[in-house]
Amino acid sequence: MIQSTFYLTADGRLLEQLDADQIRSFLATGEGLLWVDVQDMSGDDAELLSSVFRFHPLAVADCISKNIHPPKIDDFEDYLFVIVHGINYHIDSEVVETTELALFLGKNYVVTTHDVPMRSVSSVLGKVGKDGRPMRRGADFLAHDIIDAMVDNFTPTLEEMDEKSVGIEVEALDEPKRQTLASIMQLKRSVLALTRVILPQREIVNSLSRGEYALISERAQIYYRNVYDHLMRIEMLTRDLRDMADSALNTYLSSVSNRMNEVMKMLTLIATIFIPLTFIAGIYGMNFANMPELEWRYGYFAILVLMAVIGASLVIYVRKKKWV
Amino acid sequence: MIQSTFYLTADGRLLEQLDADQIRSFLATGEGLLWVDVQDMSGDDAELLSSVFRFHPLAVADCISKNIHPPKIDDFEDYLFVIVHGINYHIDSEVVETTELALFLGKNYVVTTHDVPMRSVSSVLGKVGKDGRPMRRGADFLAHDIIDAMVDNFTPTLEEMDEKSVGIEVEALDEPKRQTLASIMQLKRSVLALTRVILPQREIVNSLSRGEYALISERAQIYYRNVYDHLMRIEMLTRDLRDMADSALNTYLSSVSNRMNEVMKMLTLIATIFIPLTFIAGIYGMNFANMPELEWRYGYFAILVLMAVIGASLVIYVRKKKWV
Amino acid sequence: MIQSTFYLTADGRLLEQLDADQIRSFLATGEGLLWVDVQDMSGDDAELLSSVFRFHPLAVADCISKNIHPPKIDDFEDYLFVIVHGINYHIDSEVVETTELALFLGKNYVVTTHDVPMRSVSSVLGKVGKDGRPMRRGADFLAHDIIDAMVDNFTPTLEEMDEKSVGIEVEALDEPKRQTLASIMQLKRSVLALTRVILPQREIVNSLSRGEYALISERAQIYYRNVYDHLMRIEMLTRDLRDMADSALNTYLSSVSNRMNEVMKMLTLIATIFIPLTFIAGIYGMNFANMPELEWRYGYFAILVLMAVIGASLVIYVRKKKWV
Amino acid sequence: MIQSTFYLTADGRLLEQLDADQIRSFLATGEGLLWVDVQDMSGDDAELLSSVFRFHPLAVADCISKNIHPPKIDDFEDYLFVIVHGINYHIDSEVVETTELALFLGKNYVVTTHDVPMRSVSSVLGKVGKDGRPMRRGADFLAHDIIDAMVDNFTPTLEEMDEKSVGIEVEALDEPKRQTLASIMQLKRSVLALTRVILPQREIVNSLSRGEYALISERAQIYYRNVYDHLMRIEMLTRDLRDMADSALNTYLSSVSNRMNEVMKMLTLIATIFIPLTFIAGIYGMNFANMPELEWRYGYFAILVLMAVIGASLVIYVRKKKWV
Amino acid sequence: MIQSTFYLTADGRLLEQLDADQIRSFLATGEGLLWVDVQDMSGDDAELLSSVFRFHPLAVADCISKNIHPPKIDDFEDYLFVIVHGINYHIDSEVVETTELALFLGKNYVVTTHDVPMRSVSSVLGKVGKDGRPMRRGADFLAHDIIDAMVDNFTPTLEEMDEKSVGIEVEALDEPKRQTLASIMQLKRSVLALTRVILPQREIVNSLSRGEYALISERAQIYYRNVYDHLMRIEMLTRDLRDMADSALNTYLSSVSNRMNEVMKMLTLIATIFIPLTFIAGIYGMNFANMPELEWRYGYFAILVLMAVIGASLVIYVRKKKWV
Repeated sequence: MIQSTFYLTADGRLLEQLDADQIRSFLATGEGLLWVDVQDMSGDDAELLSSVFRFHPLAVADCISKNIHPPKIDDFEDYLFVIVHGINYHIDSEVVETTELALFLGKNYVVTTHDVPMRSVSSVLGKVGKDGRPMRRGADFLAHDIIDAMVDNFTPTLEEMDEKSVGIEVEALDEPKRQTLASIMQLKRSVLALTRVILPQREIVNSLSRGEYALISERAQIYYRNVYDHLMRIEMLTRDLRDMADSALNTYLSSVSNRMNEVMKMLTLIATIFIPLTFIAGIYGMNFANMPELEWRYGYFAILVLMAVIGASLVIYVRKKKWV
Repeated sequence: MIQSTFYLTADGRLLEQLDADQIRSFLATGEGLLWVDVQDMSGDDAELLSSVFRFHPLAVADCISKNIHPPKIDDFEDYLFVIVHGINYHIDSEVVETTELALFLGKNYVVTTHDVPMRSVSSVLGKVGKDGRPMRRGADFLAHDIIDAMVDNFTPTLEEMDEKSVGIEVEALDEPKRQTLASIMQLKRSVLALTRVILPQREIVNSLSRGEYALISERAQIYYRNVYDHLMRIEMLTRDLRDMADSALNTYLSSVSNRMNEVMKMLTLIATIFIPLTFIAGIYGMNFANMPELEWRYGYFAILVLMAVIGASLVIYVRKKKWV
Repeated sequence: MIQSTFYLTADGRLLEQLDADQIRSFLATGEGLLWVDVQDMSGDDAELLSSVFRFHPLAVADCISKNIHPPKIDDFEDYLFVIVHGINYHIDSEVVETTELALFLGKNYVVTTHDVPMRSVSSVLGKVGKDGRPMRRGADFLAHDIIDAMVDNFTPTLEEMDEKSVGIEVEALDEPKRQTLASIMQLKRSVLALTRVILPQREIVNSLSRGEYALISERAQIYYRNVYDHLMRIEMLTRDLRDMADSALNTYLSSVSNRMNEVMKMLTLIATIFIPLTFIAGIYGMNFANMPELEWRYGYFAILVLMAVIGASLVIYVRKKKWV
Repeated sequence: MIQSTFYLTADGRLLEQLDADQIRSFLATGEGLLWVDVQDMSGDDAELLSSVFRFHPLAVADCISKNIHPPKIDDFEDYLFVIVHGINYHIDSEVVETTELALFLGKNYVVTTHDVPMRSVSSVLGKVGKDGRPMRRGADFLAHDIIDAMVDNFTPTLEEMDEKSVGIEVEALDEPKRQTLASIMQLKRSVLALTRVILPQREIVNSLSRGEYALISERAQIYYRNVYDHLMRIEMLTRDLRDMADSALNTYLSSVSNRMNEVMKMLTLIATIFIPLTFIAGIYGMNFANMPELEWRYGYFAILVLMAVIGASLVIYVRKKKWV
Repeated sequence: MIQSTFYLTADGRLLEQLDADQIRSFLATGEGLLWVDVQDMSGDDAELLSSVFRFHPLAVADCISKNIHPPKIDDFEDYLFVIVHGINYHIDSEVVETTELALFLGKNYVVTTHDVPMRSVSSVLGKVGKDGRPMRRGADFLAHDIIDAMVDNFTPTLEEMDEKSVGIEVEALDEPKRQTLASIMQLKRSVLALTRVILPQREIVNSLSRGEYALISERAQIYYRNVYDHLMRIEMLTRDLRDMADSALNTYLSSVSNRMNEVMKMLTLIATIFIPLTFIAGIYGMNFANMPELEWRYGYFAILVLMAVIGASLVIYVRKKKWV
């Protein structure tokens, strides 16, 4: 369904909500700048894109399909077809969800299509609605503003994940639970998913900034370069996140095994001290007729002292070995 | 054995089941489009390919051999010789099996050979049989349709593997059995096998889409590019699968060791509490003549109380240490 | 806030603390060499850089932003915009902190901006203040001196980390504590952070030394090459550090498990020897009416000897198996 | 020692066992095709190669040296100097041994040298001896036949290793012994050694097939390409072997630890049930004068019942926890 | 300090121990070949290099500095400045020490500088002292001879390490001690250090052999290529060493855990058999007034038989489970 259409005329007036005929006639003049935003594309929208804009059927098919496509850029000479990804991080389920924006960039138009509402597109639409400013520097700058807004949206997610991962590491060190492991594995997978979204994206923005496409003016390239630098920064942060996740996993595993060790040491201490003493008690519990010690006046107390000495020696031995 | 032959004449008629002489005469005219599909190639078929199509003996030898050849593309100027792989996933045995399609692509013919029946080839053959449509856009489009059908066949397999791997991870977390480990190792190997099939395939389709070969028209290249994007998407999914398998392995190992820990903690708890108490009982089971406590009126009950106190203290200590 | 401004006139006089108008007029002449150092850039400073030097707004924005930007080099033809990183290693918390220097290098000026005071900039400022020497060979050499001073500052940090890591490894071998693991993980992350700062830096200095930029004279390139070699050396050291950290982790894990083994062996030794002996004592503690051995004159002593023999045999067996 | 010499004259006659003078005169004519095979090269042979064929002293030195040289190809314009590796797999000791073949390929001669007898060379020599066929298509085809025979020899080794590795994995799952680990480590090292032989070899055959060398005719290149494809296939198989070895190692380690777990569970079960019961028995073994239960008529039987109840409860608890 | 100077005149006379003036005059003629070897360079030597040879101050500074520089090659047109590394392996401490040789290669001179005595340089100096032979083929061949001697020195070290590593692996399998782990970690680090020395070296020799530098004649390039092949061979050996070290680590860890397992199984066997038996003895050690079995005539013997039966059954059960 077509969400919004804006048309900035050559003399600076801003028109809204155009119908197919108006779009067709504006395109024919080749002047001004047109932006069509389509959400949850229907067959009619596809028909419009094919017949009015004459986009390649394969590109249009990519827009309709609900599948996730890897980020890419296709040069059809008259227009560029770009797929970029944004992210939605569900902090509770710790899942990174990818949202997809397909963008057609022509000489005097930009067409954006997406399956779900996107904060980045809405914010640029809002700014255009106010005074048309993002459209005043041409199609390449408008596309830049949209992509830039998407990339900006990565940062809060990364910060949330960063915070979460600090919490997980503390938990792994102090109170390793079975749930902690699940969180760590989830974090690792989220970071990997993020990396896989960011890396091809970076390459795409890089190619946009390097003057490979005639539709991107030299003046705009510097701004795309800026988005590229931003993506580099984001990549740096995800690598830090990956290190933290790896470190949390190691800490968790080592914490669990440390706890186990403590438990085992307790067992060993108890067993080491009491098993020999119980053996001694067992000896004097035997019922032999002729056991002289049993008749000694202080035999019992002597044995108690002996047991205390043996027990104390074992405790000292264990302490000296630093086992507990 | 030659399975099917189709010939679409220059004026749009569709002929079927041609014999060697007809093939030879059609090829000589250089018009129309011929498709020969060979399954489980015999010496006669090889002879036909060599003498009628004049294919290079090494290429023909590759078609006869039952070995698995890595995907590749050879340019013999007059024709391309392409080997691509499909997969058969046996969900029960969790084994990925590779099936091989060899394809000769000439100016006005396509020859496909394979050892076993292939769903992708059959489906395109079926469409051709109905109205000849897949043959109406030329040899390069026909080859595209066949390869596209093969690549489409990857998706259900990946989905099955994905579902399976979710099941395995749940099993690894809740009920790790020896069988679970075998499943995980099998899954990892299947994913690796899949990766090895997909990666070179991607490169081949990429080279077909980049205009490196004169036999692929510019119009068709865009469609090959689409197959390439599809393979990229599949690769993305296999990477996710690999992450899941790694994560399942980690979960399994950690689950097993968690269970072991629980068992050990039980042992420690029991031993820590009862070994000292048994020692005390042992002391008063000794047969010394002179053991004053034994004569005390409430000695027995005092000892029972002492044991209860010691036992309770140990339980409290263990609880405080959070061992159980 | 502008910290320092120096202007070396074409005839070798050194002026200090210039105001905006003076800067503007000096720039207009195109002679001499100007150095402006800005710390914790304010809006006014940004305004000055934009209006007087006519720097690109995106570059100026990078200078104002407190975010960490990855090292980079942008060529704006009239000037180069370079971001390089220094490090601050907090030996107590074992954290590597990155500090960022943005540097504009023009034909006859250098502008440096940073958020916090930097030892490297201060030291070069000091030398310029004394006799202007670092400014006498041109802007490219001045920039070289600043970057060189930053790179020199890596070495003491690396030496401190090296010393620390030796201490950690010894600790891991002799007294593995839970804290040791945290130190090792921290060291690993510091080294990774360091690697990530050094690698892109090296590429930047490499491109400065290869004659890619007209603003770097051929004579200066050799000096940049020297900085590059220095960074290679530093990289070599960080790789050694990484090996040491990995090795310390392995040593730690193996130390912990060795200690555990010792504890378990003690338990096994005690239990193996005393459990059978206690069983024998238990037999002769039974109260059967008819137990002939109990009446034997030397039954008790015979049993004591038997127990000694069994105990000794078990000790010998255990020793022969090299378990203790 | 010169093993065999063959000379195929321009008019198709096959001469054998030539002496140095004959070789010299045939080379001088520049017609026909000469093959000299040298095994365990002596100083005299080296002298002959240097003086008659005028090979570079460094190449000749490589042939004399008993060291293993990495596969390589040197272009001396008049001739190519190629070193390729075959393998000898000793199935009993599971060791992969590399054998080396040095090959000089000139316009009208091939010289092969090796330290030990090689099956591949012998088989081609045999075919030449019969009717000279492998020599009838020129020096480049003769060299191809020899290299092809070497590459063919990899396959049986790989199959043997494959079979062995299946056996090892079964053993690792069902009866993990210390010897199993040694076998796995040995298998891993063999596969790595194999990979290191195959990878550079592949590159060499690739360069021979790409028309980089004038001495390889275009017609022969296709055949070298075929050898390359074969090496690719072999590489694929070695990767599978590597996966199997990794998987076997994982299976082994997990099998060993599973067995350990079973043993520990048994211990825990026994201890958990009998330690509390023994404690109860210990209580009623105490010799206090006043223990009322001892005088009860059915005290003994009541205690036996109590013990049975406690024991059964513990067994049920353990079963519910799925520990055994 | 200048160690040795040799000058081979154009007419083949060999002069030794020249002073600075002689060096200057010989250089001025541009004839003959001069070799100056400097050890532990002093300020005077640096002065000489700067003023007489006119070397770049940065290159001279690299020679004075005692730091380790990564291998590199700088082309100053009139001369090449090469840094290559040799190794000193201290077999006792198992430490690989890198020694550094800086080499200036001009049209008619070679200058070598190093901090410590180097066997490779001494041996070439010795050969020159005898009859000047290594100098008779020009500066590029002289440099080749020196570098070749350095590379030759790697081999004995590798052989020593190889021997050592075999010993370590045997020790790891048969008698894993704490010291064994330290040896393995040390071996791994030595191999890594070696790899880091060899890899950049290989690239340098490769670039010398590829005709990138005018100062290396085509005839000499083949000899540099030979050194390159030698380095490839050495690299192959270090990779084998790395495999062996990894394998030794795995063997060690598995050996230690196998031993632990054996110990635990012993404990389990003893405990499993004797804990139930001790419980039975405990029952008949109770002092109940009414315990009919105690009065049976053969009660004691019946119980002994029962115990023997239970013990034997447990042993059989354990054996059947293959736990011991």
